[in-house]
Formats: sequence, structure tokens, C-alpha cells
Amino acid sequence: LRSELGRHQVLLPDDGLERYERSVLGDATGRAAFVARPTSTAEVRAVVRWAYRHRVRLVPQSANSGLVHGGIPDGSGTMGVLSLELCKERLEVDRLGRTLTASAGYDLDWLNDHLRGDGLMLPVDVGSSPGVGGMVATNTGGTKVIGYGDVRRLTLGLEVVLADEDATVIDMLGGLRKNNTGLDLKQLFVATGGTYGVVTAATFELVPRPKQVATAWVVVKDDDAAFGLLQLLEADAGEFLTSFESMSGAVLELRRRHNPDLRLPFPAGSLPDLAILVELSSATPPDLGGLSMEELLVGVLDRGAARGHVVDAFLGRPEEMWALRHGIDEPAKEGVAFWVDVSLPRANIAVFRTRLFALAGTRHRDWTVLDLGHYGDGGLHVGLLYPFSRGRPPDPEEAEAFRLGVYELVAEHGGTFSAEHGIGPYNERYYRRFKDPAVQRLSGELKQLFDPRGILGVVNLGP
Amino acid sequence: LRSELGRHQVLLPDDGLERYERSVLGDATGRAAFVARPTSTAEVRAVVRWAYRHRVRLVPQSANSGLVHGGIPDGSGTMGVLSLELCKERLEVDRLGRTLTASAGYDLDWLNDHLRGDGLMLPVDVGSSPGVGGMVATNTGGTKVIGYGDVRRLTLGLEVVLADEDATVIDMLGGLRKNNTGLDLKQLFVATGGTYGVVTAATFELVPRPKQVATAWVVVKDDDAAFGLLQLLEADAGEFLTSFESMSGAVLELRRRHNPDLRLPFPAGSLPDLAILVELSSATPPDLGGLSMEELLVGVLDRGAARGHVVDAFLGRPEEMWALRHGIDEPAKEGVAFWVDVSLPRANIAVFRTRLFALAGTRHRDWTVLDLGHYGDGGLHVGLLYPFSRGRPPDPEEAEAFRLGVYELVAEHGGTFSAEHGIGPYNERYYRRFKDPAVQRLSGELKQLFDPRGILGVVNLGP
Repeated sequence: LRSELGRHQVLLPDDGLERYERSVLGDATGRAAFVARPTSTAEVRAVVRWAYRHRVRLVPQSANSGLVHGGIPDGSGTMGVLSLELCKERLEVDRLGRTLTASAGYDLDWLNDHLRGDGLMLPVDVGSSPGVGGMVATNTGGTKVIGYGDVRRLTLGLEVVLADEDATVIDMLGGLRKNNTGLDLKQLFVATGGTYGVVTAATFELVPRPKQVATAWVVVKDDDAAFGLLQLLEADAGEFLTSFESMSGAVLELRRRHNPDLRLPFPAGSLPDLAILVELSSATPPDLGGLSMEELLVGVLDRGAARGHVVDAFLGRPEEMWALRHGIDEPAKEGVAFWVDVSLPRANIAVFRTRLFALAGTRHRDWTVLDLGHYGDGGLHVGLLYPFSRGRPPDPEEAEAFRLGVYELVAEHGGTFSAEHGIGPYNERYYRRFKDPAVQRLSGELKQLFDPRGILGVVNLGP
Repeated sequence: LRSELGRHQVLLPDDGLERYERSVLGDATGRAAFVARPTSTAEVRAVVRWAYRHRVRLVPQSANSGLVHGGIPDGSGTMGVLSLELCKERLEVDRLGRTLTASAGYDLDWLNDHLRGDGLMLPVDVGSSPGVGGMVATNTGGTKVIGYGDVRRLTLGLEVVLADEDATVIDMLGGLRKNNTGLDLKQLFVATGGTYGVVTAATFELVPRPKQVATAWVVVKDDDAAFGLLQLLEADAGEFLTSFESMSGAVLELRRRHNPDLRLPFPAGSLPDLAILVELSSATPPDLGGLSMEELLVGVLDRGAARGHVVDAFLGRPEEMWALRHGIDEPAKEGVAFWVDVSLPRANIAVFRTRLFALAGTRHRDWTVLDLGHYGDGGLHVGLLYPFSRGRPPDPEEAEAFRLGVYELVAEHGGTFSAEHGIGPYNERYYRRFKDPAVQRLSGELKQLFDPRGILGVVNLGP
């Protein structure tokens, strides 16, 4: 492989591979036989052809920011990491088409800095800066999905390399918004963790950067009030709603305890049981058409108050408002935390949360339930915290039972055990349990078509 | 089959099957051995199981409004039509979730009437009222795609019946906006013309009905000016832009000639070479946040005029403005018309049109080129009109050569030969010519997985 790619593009264990082997949260570590770092699609093909010939398993990785361990090798020491971090061959902004074509190695923050001058952005907002390849392979969600959709919706084109004998390249790049010519093959490579092919480049739809943003933390009595407010916002300000995020009192309390300098918008000494971060954004400048985001937000919140949905509301500068929502790392300071990433039909979130707290209260009294999420699109991150103060580590079986209990509740209410983090070793066993067996079977049969020797990816989507 | 479904649900040739055999435009007619009309998913399964057992080919059909003949049987007289028109088992509106679940037999206009009371709509706008099954199978586009996306984007869930021995039902219904659990299998049944499975129900995302709409016909000097205006609109009024439709002078002239009562917005006696229908819509009422759609549209058009993009503009009531755009049937009054449905990257539309007219002017002088379309999303309908006034029918070979020439130009400019009508016998040979052979091969292999006996659909997506 070194003779094909060059010495510096193939790293061996002696070169220090830790950053390719370890998950970003440090909760999993694999062992790689090597790390191949191609710089172009042609070099990706060379790696894949070589791996096919020698039946060596590869795990594609771009920014290694995934949360389900789908981008790091397993513990066998026999897999290679196919790092796409140097793949930066293509970078084209089509201003008139409002599209971006970028190789797999570019990362979100870099791209958005690059697009700033044109007044455009790739509207994905997560707590990290994933690579193009990884965003496609996990179908990244985040805090703006209600406004702009997920990565699947934003993906107008892809280039992929299949793990067949020729390492066939399928070029589906391009910025067409209408293209109904039979099978939309690119959809198969979105959210499938790089197991059907290596994503080497993507064309994304871009949106104008907002010229007006209004942000508020809203205190609501309960979930019913929160969703009442959401319905009001969608009915009267739907085009502008870019975030509708929830945070429970337990999470707020943790944040306050560990961040004395964090400015809380709420009156001193009081923390709500449930608070909602609402953001309205518009590309329309205030001097056109009379539009004021702040006035609109205040108007809808007033209507919400009149109907009893809103207890109190605090408008402020977006950076300050978001500071409370981003960068939550306090749970790990107080104990061992397990997080799950679920989603539900909006109409079932209230009853799901009630039952979740009841489950914890009756069967897992030692655990604290933390939850925050994306009410607008039904996404919820549930954290299970076992405090250090108990003086002993959590019982792994009980932790597992709790996690499974959460997923069962989710399934019972029409939801899913993976909303936006994708499938990886972290949740593969639940895939096996909750994904429709017929779809698992078909997923395995597709794998045969794209990757007959089964060399790509660390997760098995077959039964 | 009659013993399973009941006598009245299976029609035979003596019952008169014309409306199931004939395309909506009357430009193609097939011959059906029978028409099966199941009323439920269970009955669809019974039909499919029966057809599997007897190796009888079926073509799924809902409202039979397709334009590429993908929903009518071929001429063999051996296929059955699997009509979904009576499949109305499910109809659920989830107001909080802003979703609709409906069986394949409901049609667009009926659904939108049904949703009106809740202030919601399924934002698909085409010149007909397709069924749920057909909208999914062709991934219907239309005049509002720039604002709301195509049917694929609006599809949150599907139920399909596979043509395997068991007639396996895959239930992927539900209104989840985030759901990253590996393969998103439903994507395979969108735009594939019912050849991978029978779509029996879908869950769609709904949007609030607009409370303000501003509509204008805008006269522009040329394509560059049109796209300059589009960029201005997207930069300053992007959230509101629901239509940006083009119509060429030749089409306007035809419309005027045959519709003396049609009110044209342009000054008497003058018709522009190129006119754009712009529509801005908002769910926000005028009494909230100061927003006025009309003021905003006027503001952006003023800016456009200052930059030389806008020659003249005429605001008016939406119904009146759209009357000029909808229901175009004049070409058939003047000759034999062939229409193609293409799309291009926006940046290439201007050069494509220049070359299209040059091609017609040099090699096909007897033909008139008509074009209108969806500039906002790159879609273009090109009509080739051979006038009766020539006194003889068009030479079929020349017609074919012209059509192929258009597609070749499109391909050369990064476009596609089917934008929103899908693939059917009408354009299957071009699929064979222009679709990536690797994707054709994979499409054929997928067919094997879903429909091993090859009994579903009238079109073959394999090589």
C-alpha cells in the first residue's frame, strides 16, 4: 500500500494512531493495523482495490467526531482506517445554484467560514465540526433541522467508491434540484455509516445566512404548554422557526452548579422545570417588507402567554442564549453518564417523558434522568447519570437494563432508538432488536451488491 | 382472483377498461387483461400473491395522471392493472406533528380540501390531482418545489407491499423527522415507478397554509437578468419564495392567440420575450412582526430594477396571475407537439437555451420551440411543435432526432432528461442511454431482491 500511496500517507502503529482509534468522547478505543490517508478519489480507489485484493477490512473516517463509534476500528487490530482527512481535491461554490461541492475531508466549520463571504451557509449546527464524509454517512441532524432539514435533505449529489473488484466510482455529484430518473442511488449511502461505499465528495444545497435572528429562552409549565407554543409558532411564524430546543430543570441545575460564570436568563434563584430555546431567523433585512424578527417573536410569545402556554420569556443575544445550550459536559463531573439519542412523534413526547421518569423513579432510583433535545423535530437526548456520590460504580447490568427500558418505551410510542447519531457499535445490538427484520435482511442483501467481500465499515446492517 | 377480492373488484375487458388503459393526455394506450381494485393493504397483498403465484405482471396505478405512461399496461394484453383508487383505508391528520398519513388511493386535491380546516396543506402544486401512490412513485415536483421541496422531501413514511412470495408488507409509516437507523429503505420506492414495490400508504409532512401571498409577472430582458433577480430574491426574501416560473414569448403568444378572454398583465399589444412569475408566500399574518408580502416583493423588485434585472413588473391577485401559467393546451391546437421535461443546474440554463434555439434554427427549421418551466429549481419543459400549417405530418425520425438532440444538449450541460415526470415507456430508451450504466446494473440487481419474478411495473430500470 505504501508503494501505491507514498510512505507518509500510510501510517503504522509505530507512527502513533491513537487519534484515529479513539472516539471523540473517549468512551471507546479500537486498534488499527494501519491508517491510509488518500488525498484524492483516485487514491481512495487504490486503497479500496488493495483492500479488496487482500480482503482487509477498512473503516472510513473523516473528522472522527461521531458518537456511536462507527468511524473507528474494532479491537481486532486487523482493520485499517481509511482516513479521508486529506481528501480535499474538490471545493466548488456555485453561487447562482446555491450549492457547494466538497471532498470528504473538509469539515463543517471550515466550510462555513469559507462560505461566509458569499452570504451563504451549510445550515447544519451540531456541537462539533464533522467532515463531509461523516455528515453524509451519519445523516447529521442537530439544532436547526426544523428550519433547514437534515443532511439527507441538503444532499443534492454524492460521489462514492464501491468496494467491488474495480473500486467502481459512482459520480452522482451536481446541483440538480429535480432529477427523477429512476433509482436515486445516493440515498443508500446516506446514514449507512460508510458500509455500502466510501463517500468521497458531496454536493450540498446552501441557504442564505440570516440577516435577522431573534432568540429567547421561554419558561413553560409542562410539555403540553411547550407543544402548544410550538403549534402557535409554526402556524404564525413557521418560515422563520430554526430552533425549538428543550432543556429540563435537572440539566439546568447541573449547568448552574458547575458554571458560576454562566449567565442564566432566568430570575436569580429560580430555575424552571422545563425551558425552551426558541430561535427565529430570516434572510430578509429589516428594511425590506417591514419584517422584524424580534417583534414577531414577541408577538407570538404574547399570544402564547394569553393562551397559558408561556410562563415567562427572556430575549437576548443569540450567543448568550445558546451558551446555556451548547457544550454540556457537567454530567461527567458528577458521575457516570450514559446518553441515548431517540426521537418520537411530537404528539408522544409528553407521555413518553412522564413514563420515563416513572420508570426511573420505580426501578432505578439511584439514577438521575437528564434530558434535553430538539422538541421541534421530535429528537430527545436522554442521559442516565449514576452519581459518584453513591460511592460505588454503577452496576453495568442495571445500566443496560435502564437503557433498554428507555428504548422499549420509545418503540412503544412510535419512536426510534437512533435519531441523529446513526448506527455504530454503540447501538448495533439495539439495531438488531428494534429494526424491522425484513429491512435488516434487505440491508444485508444490499451489502452483497456493493461490498461483496464485506470489507467496508465497522457495523453490520445485515441480520 | 375474483374469488379472493369479490366480483366487483376485478374488472375484465368486457367491463370497459379504457380509463385504466389510456394515458391522461391520450398519447398512449395499453391493453389490460384485467383491473384489480383492492380496498385495503390486505387485499393488495392478496392480488400480489396471486400474481406472484401465476407469474402475472401488474402495473400499479392510482389516479392515472402520469405523463410518461408508467401507470398504464403495455400493449400485450397480458398485464393486469393494480388500481389503488379504492385504497382509502387510512387517513390520519396529526395536527401537532404536522403530518398526514393517507392510503394510496386518495388524491392531492381531495386531501388539500380535507386539510383546509386545520390551516394545513400538502404543498404540491401541479396541473392535475395525482394519487398518493403515484406521487410517491414519480416523486412529483411542480411549481412550488423551490419553496417546499419535492415529494421525496415531504415523505416521512411509507407502507409498501413487495412482490415476493409472501407479498411482504414493510411498514415504514409514521411522522418521525429524525430517524437514523441505517438504511432508509423507503427512499428506494420513491421515483421508481412502482417497480420495486406497491406503495399502499404514505406519511407526508404538511405545512401551514399561507396567510399572505404576493404574486407578480416580471418582464426581464434575458436569462441573465432572470437569474440575477432570482439571486436577489433568494438573498433577501428566500424564506418566502414559493415560485419562480418562466414562460417564453412563443408560449405567451400562443396563449394569447387562442384565449381572447385571458387577461394578460402586460400592456396591450406587447408581449415580452421572457416573463417570470414570482410568488412569495408566508404563514405569518400581516398583523404580526410587521411583515407585508406585497411590500417585500415590491421592495425586491425595485432593487432588481435598479440593477437592470427587471424591465417591468405587474402585481395582481394570485388566481389571475396563475391563470396565464396553468392549463396550457394551445400547442396541440396548432400542430403536433412533443414535450420533454428536463432540468439543469441553474447556472447552465441560459447557455442551454441559447444552444437549443440555435439547434432548432439550423437543423429543424420547421419546428417551433416552446419552453416554460421552473427556473427556481432548474426545471424546464421544452415543447417541440410541428405546425399543422406545414400541410403534412412531422417526420417521426426528425422528431426523434430533435428530441435526442435536446437531451444531448441537456446532458452536456450537466442536466437530466427527466426532471419531475419520472421514468416510463415514454422515456425509457433515454434512461437506457443517459443513466449511468453502473446505476442501471445496480437497479436491476435491486429488482431481483424486491421482485424476483419481475411482475411489477411497466418499466425496466435494469440495463
